[in-house]
Amino acid sequence: MSIPTETRAQMLIKALPYIQKYHGKILVIKYGGNAMLSDELKHAVMGDLTLLAQIGVRVVLVHGGGPEITELMEKTGKKPVFADGLRVTDKETADIVQMALAGKVNKDLVNRIHCCGGKAIGLCGIDGHMILAKPRDEKLGFVGEITDVNPQPILDVLTAGYIPVVSTVGCDEDGNVYNINADTAAEHIAGALGAQSLIMMTDTVGILREPDDLASLVSELTVSQAIQFIREGVITGGMIPKTYCCVNAIRRGVERVFIIDGRTPHAILIEVLTDEGIGTMFR
Amino acid sequence: MSIPTETRAQMLIKALPYIQKYHGKILVIKYGGNAMLSDELKHAVMGDLTLLAQIGVRVVLVHGGGPEITELMEKTGKKPVFADGLRVTDKETADIVQMALAGKVNKDLVNRIHCCGGKAIGLCGIDGHMILAKPRDEKLGFVGEITDVNPQPILDVLTAGYIPVVSTVGCDEDGNVYNINADTAAEHIAGALGAQSLIMMTDTVGILREPDDLASLVSELTVSQAIQFIREGVITGGMIPKTYCCVNAIRRGVERVFIIDGRTPHAILIEVLTDEGIGTMFR
Amino acid sequence: MSIPTETRAQMLIKALPYIQKYHGKILVIKYGGNAMLSDELKHAVMGDLTLLAQIGVRVVLVHGGGPEITELMEKTGKKPVFADGLRVTDKETADIVQMALAGKVNKDLVNRIHCCGGKAIGLCGIDGHMILAKPRDEKLGFVGEITDVNPQPILDVLTAGYIPVVSTVGCDEDGNVYNINADTAAEHIAGALGAQSLIMMTDTVGILREPDDLASLVSELTVSQAIQFIREGVITGGMIPKTYCCVNAIRRGVERVFIIDGRTPHAILIEVLTDEGIGTMFR
Amino acid sequence: MSIPTETRAQMLIKALPYIQKYHGKILVIKYGGNAMLSDELKHAVMGDLTLLAQIGVRVVLVHGGGPEITELMEKTGKKPVFADGLRVTDKETADIVQMALAGKVNKDLVNRIHCCGGKAIGLCGIDGHMILAKPRDEKLGFVGEITDVNPQPILDVLTAGYIPVVSTVGCDEDGNVYNINADTAAEHIAGALGAQSLIMMTDTVGILREPDDLASLVSELTVSQAIQFIREGVITGGMIPKTYCCVNAIRRGVERVFIIDGRTPHAILIEVLTDEGIGTMFR
Amino acid sequence: MSIPTETRAQMLIKALPYIQKYHGKILVIKYGGNAMLSDELKHAVMGDLTLLAQIGVRVVLVHGGGPEITELMEKTGKKPVFADGLRVTDKETADIVQMALAGKVNKDLVNRIHCCGGKAIGLCGIDGHMILAKPRDEKLGFVGEITDVNPQPILDVLTAGYIPVVSTVGCDEDGNVYNINADTAAEHIAGALGAQSLIMMTDTVGILREPDDLASLVSELTVSQAIQFIREGVITGGMIPKTYCCVNAIRRGVERVFIIDGRTPHAILIEVLTDEGIGTMFR
Amino acid sequence: MSIPTETRAQMLIKALPYIQKYHGKILVIKYGGNAMLSDELKHAVMGDLTLLAQIGVRVVLVHGGGPEITELMEKTGKKPVFADGLRVTDKETADIVQMALAGKVNKDLVNRIHCCGGKAIGLCGIDGHMILAKPRDEKLGFVGEITDVNPQPILDVLTAGYIPVVSTVGCDEDGNVYNINADTAAEHIAGALGAQSLIMMTDTVGILREPDDLASLVSELTVSQAIQFIREGVITGGMIPKTYCCVNAIRRGVERVFIIDGRTPHAILIEVLTDEGIGTMFR
Repeated sequence: MSIPTETRAQMLIKALPYIQKYHGKILVIKYGGNAMLSDELKHAVMGDLTLLAQIGVRVVLVHGGGPEITELMEKTGKKPVFADGLRVTDKETADIVQMALAGKVNKDLVNRIHCCGGKAIGLCGIDGHMILAKPRDEKLGFVGEITDVNPQPILDVLTAGYIPVVSTVGCDEDGNVYNINADTAAEHIAGALGAQSLIMMTDTVGILREPDDLASLVSELTVSQAIQFIREGVITGGMIPKTYCCVNAIRRGVERVFIIDGRTPHAILIEVLTDEGIGTMFR
Repeated sequence: MSIPTETRAQMLIKALPYIQKYHGKILVIKYGGNAMLSDELKHAVMGDLTLLAQIGVRVVLVHGGGPEITELMEKTGKKPVFADGLRVTDKETADIVQMALAGKVNKDLVNRIHCCGGKAIGLCGIDGHMILAKPRDEKLGFVGEITDVNPQPILDVLTAGYIPVVSTVGCDEDGNVYNINADTAAEHIAGALGAQSLIMMTDTVGILREPDDLASLVSELTVSQAIQFIREGVITGGMIPKTYCCVNAIRRGVERVFIIDGRTPHAILIEVLTDEGIGTMFR
Repeated sequence: MSIPTETRAQMLIKALPYIQKYHGKILVIKYGGNAMLSDELKHAVMGDLTLLAQIGVRVVLVHGGGPEITELMEKTGKKPVFADGLRVTDKETADIVQMALAGKVNKDLVNRIHCCGGKAIGLCGIDGHMILAKPRDEKLGFVGEITDVNPQPILDVLTAGYIPVVSTVGCDEDGNVYNINADTAAEHIAGALGAQSLIMMTDTVGILREPDDLASLVSELTVSQAIQFIREGVITGGMIPKTYCCVNAIRRGVERVFIIDGRTPHAILIEVLTDEGIGTMFR
Repeated sequence: MSIPTETRAQMLIKALPYIQKYHGKILVIKYGGNAMLSDELKHAVMGDLTLLAQIGVRVVLVHGGGPEITELMEKTGKKPVFADGLRVTDKETADIVQMALAGKVNKDLVNRIHCCGGKAIGLCGIDGHMILAKPRDEKLGFVGEITDVNPQPILDVLTAGYIPVVSTVGCDEDGNVYNINADTAAEHIAGALGAQSLIMMTDTVGILREPDDLASLVSELTVSQAIQFIREGVITGGMIPKTYCCVNAIRRGVERVFIIDGRTPHAILIEVLTDEGIGTMFR
Repeated sequence: MSIPTETRAQMLIKALPYIQKYHGKILVIKYGGNAMLSDELKHAVMGDLTLLAQIGVRVVLVHGGGPEITELMEKTGKKPVFADGLRVTDKETADIVQMALAGKVNKDLVNRIHCCGGKAIGLCGIDGHMILAKPRDEKLGFVGEITDVNPQPILDVLTAGYIPVVSTVGCDEDGNVYNINADTAAEHIAGALGAQSLIMMTDTVGILREPDDLASLVSELTVSQAIQFIREGVITGGMIPKTYCCVNAIRRGVERVFIIDGRTPHAILIEVLTDEGIGTMFR
Repeated sequence: MSIPTETRAQMLIKALPYIQKYHGKILVIKYGGNAMLSDELKHAVMGDLTLLAQIGVRVVLVHGGGPEITELMEKTGKKPVFADGLRVTDKETADIVQMALAGKVNKDLVNRIHCCGGKAIGLCGIDGHMILAKPRDEKLGFVGEITDVNPQPILDVLTAGYIPVVSTVGCDEDGNVYNINADTAAEHIAGALGAQSLIMMTDTVGILREPDDLASLVSELTVSQAIQFIREGVITGGMIPKTYCCVNAIRRGVERVFIIDGRTPHAILIEVLTDEGIGTMFR
């Protein structure tokens, strides 16, 4: 579609109040799922982050990387073992998680941000020992539960002018390394940073009142409504823990938490810089 | 025209390289002519400045105000006198110039920037004694020729986070006040500030190779080409002094000087944030 | 009178404790009345401010300009209309107020400070939208009542090393401009700045216990004594609102408020740097 | 051996002149070889770095990790291919290099520094796009030759109070990732940082005049002597490229370059904080 | 004793946790007695201070100088007079105290610190009028009791990078000079500085449970235990006022106070940087 | 003499241009001779310094103290020995110099400045090892010739807001202490500080063309004129070395050097803050 130049300028002007609103504020983006698998979407997301950082938003990217972990396990011939539906993480698996997340996914995202003209530094929870964890359950091995988040390394990197890209690998004071759930890590990090907003990029359009009816999208809800929705079975399955992360982030002092559809190109920009809310916002 | 959200996001993303290019750079905008008469255009220009300042461009607005001077002279029953085609400025006229520019136009522009959500402080050449001048010709009275520009007050206001709006009223060390040509003042100010760019908003589309053929617009030219155009009579009339101002700004170290059409809404944004150069650029 | 050099040196030394007392403190001076009409007095006042600023006092000058407004109205053939004894201010009158104050009086004072060797920047309540107002009474038009003062632009200008000179023109968020009473504005500004002292330059020697007896000058009084004086009819006429401004300034946290006689040359220096209190001090 | 307390105190006092000499100076340590394989040695090296950082030396750790790369290749069943004696690095191998270095070795070192009570952040050449490279030879694939080093991210991390740990993975502006020789990277990084000293930890005692005679250790030599030794065949085999790195670092402005034996526990502390030079120093 | 290099390095490494513990903390050292008479011990103490300052401890040295006062009195033929066992200090004696302490002992210590490679500035309580005092007892003349300590001059000197060396000479606002007990001054100074630790260098090994049994050394005691020991007669004679100084320092907020034996070479380093506590610590 | 208040205010105003001229500039004052013996004059001088420091001059006081040295030598029964007309300074005499200057005169001056309401810190050349010296002539013992002046400690004390008071005691790197001529020290210190002015307070009215004719006072002279005056015998005796100090200070970059009569009360203020030059100025 060809758009007249003047219309394009008006489009920029319309973003002004949103730019003012987010200027100097910390925005944590939890990135994962399908939005991270498509090369095209990945490029769009990194472009969005670069633009937001450039106009003065203090952007922090938190990512997981299940598929990459699985891929490296397969390549090394390591068989997954499960207990109570959760993956048992022995020392060797923890090494694979560390390599796949902090070595591959993390640095690839940093690389892409630079290709978009931005500046980034990749960190994981081991850097500055910033994500401290303990075993969640002895029989699961190195699956970690966060005991403390020290936001200082992220703030230092932000202050120096880079987008911090954070892998959700944790550790303890003896140097053991833990695999940490990325949604939970994002929730803790946003809270510890005193972030204004947290955006969870998912493979859904948001919370639906009726499972298959996109028109039933709940565009805004409070913590108590969310809890109610879980109780009533409106929110089900994988959305339950995700909803709890959103709810907990609000409780940790984050002002707004968004669930948006990572499969929509430029979903972040649309959410942040336009009047068109997409997805679901928790307050 | 209804534009899909995604397209709108792409539009923002396309501005990224331009935002990066101007980030932290000083951009002086000479504002006057018809762009300053229409209320709608004035609002569009102030919006453009606010957006640019918000995304990190260090914007300085320099303005004249011939029509407002004339209006106040008429209201006070003061008859204009001319000598060699230039308006003779006695002490009383100098007072009127000062009131119309520093009192009316200047503060009105500051006012509008705030209404657009920006922050501005209005200055004139008397503040910080920053535009020093001497009489251009004794018989013209207080028509001034710039002898020195001290950019410090403008820089101080920029550093404190405001858009400086500058009236082109000058003074000398004895306290005499002079009417200064706004194009010339903009050229000197941009030079003294070490500005990266100077945009001259005019009532023309730029420099035309053929007087009435808009298709003959010269989109880029060097200092020597400009001088050549004047010699060859391609540039004529009121465009000659304006061209000299552009040429001199380049000589004072400004990297790029633009003549753009102030009658086009959002002409500044289009020039600065899109790939579509409008008007004429001097290098 | 010829004074021996040594005596002159002792005079300077005697100012030392006063210089120490005011060092780094904010001193707001409300300037107006006859002290602003005589050229000689004006020069003396600007010299005093420059000296105080030079020795480390953080001086802020707040001025009105009734006579200049009247003069410009007369020149433009605009007839004053009164309602309940107050001047009705239509849009055109508001423009005249803005031009006379922010354009003429303000920049003239800035100009003079520079001629005394000082550095100043002229502001009005529109700059940084720092004096917000609303109509005091619908039938009076744009006569404003202050709703909020943002002292930041004044502090920014002070920090950058200039004497801020402030015209008491206010505005609202829609960009309407209001004429503000200068005494009231000085009171609000001094309060918002957390000033240590406020000096009101008037055309009286201070508060007199007996109307025509200069020997009955009250050199110091408390807020409750002032209120008592008004009740008892000791303070009458135009001194009543002025006294309320002084009282309110004290209530807004200003430590000391002085009413001094602007017709005495160097009254400010005498009040601030010598042991000779002149005028009336409120505590 | 039991050492009297007083003797222990004297030992600390003897370090004083060396602490003063290195205070605030940048010291780059190239770490690799056997010193990186033994757990005990690794712990000793990280303790040394932590102590040096604590007493005011600005320590930067640069590491390679050949064995870890080989191990991960073996685990994933990837067969090494050689051309002209150099390992051919296809895209998949480049990924393995990135994971093994930036994911495993790097974060493990950061982890250990924290276990020693220090603070570290792990970086690779992709972060801040700080090691830019191009293919060294088309047929070798992603084996990189450094084209530029931007030391800013390392300086930012130092300034924020962390020991930067740097993996020698490079990239180009299109996002391709290259395997970089760690000795060469250390040489470039030390040069770009304006480091005072560079310590190369090796598996040799230093440069020997007679191959098998430890007593023939050359404790100090100039750039021209080093070149001479290569010409004369005193320096041979793998020591030739290492010697060139040392020589080039000197040419890039590093004051002193040391080759020390990483197999000696606390070799760094001995070299830096005692009067006992071990190894070979280039000037 | 010849100690292998590696052992020496391990010794340094063992100091690491102590260096980390004291980094950036204020440590006040009260210096006097025999430790100040032997040239060799004096050199060792100044070396210790220089090392501690170099590795980041904020060291403040407070000293008296009884023997030097006595020596100068003898030289000038001034006879000591006593009242109730305390030295009567007339104006002439106060001058001698000032000269001996602030002129001789103080600058000699500063001189020695520089000879050890450190940086120091010598102050006394008159500088910045930082130790204010009043007569302790009229009949004793200028023997002072501290009324206030202003720690700012010491902090300014620390911040500028020097070891402050402080003579315990006090003064009052009229300019009278007082001789102040050095232990008491150290207690007040440590309290006013918010020091983490205060070390009192004495001529004893610490507090002994049995007068002549070194094995009965009390290595740690609380404030209430100390008071109890005085009551029970375990602490006697000159140790009583010294113990009160320690107890009061704790009450003024100093975390730890040590009594150590100044006759042991490097006693300070042993106490601060090793696991071997010598002397007695109050908590 | 009773002076009208307004005249007093005018006196302050007249000082304004001089205050502006010296604002932020370094002014070194060499203090000694009779101006230091009379208590009344001493008080006046300290008051002058306090006033100058308060209004923004960066004042540095350099003092000697011959009479106090002689007094302490007499008290201790030490006989002066001379060689070639200069006092032989053995180790014991050097100690006396150090005590009399750095202990007595220095701290007394600091004390008085505080009694005038100022803030001062007393230093000598040993502090920060800032005046380095070597023996001027072996047979004179510890009479020093300056080899280097490090102005940093003086600048640090100035920056922290105190008047530095400097005793002209020097030292060498081995810790030997030297007696330094105060005029020479002032010359070196002013040069090393890049002072704008140096004022030498003396017991003469300045340089006289005719020995006994006060009317022949030379109020201004250049370096070459001064040299000429010495050659011609216009300047004789003790004024010759003093003149050389002035000349050398100019050569070291000090803009203006003044010889003024310390016996005139407030001579410094008269010279610095009035239009009345007293004494002789070197340019």
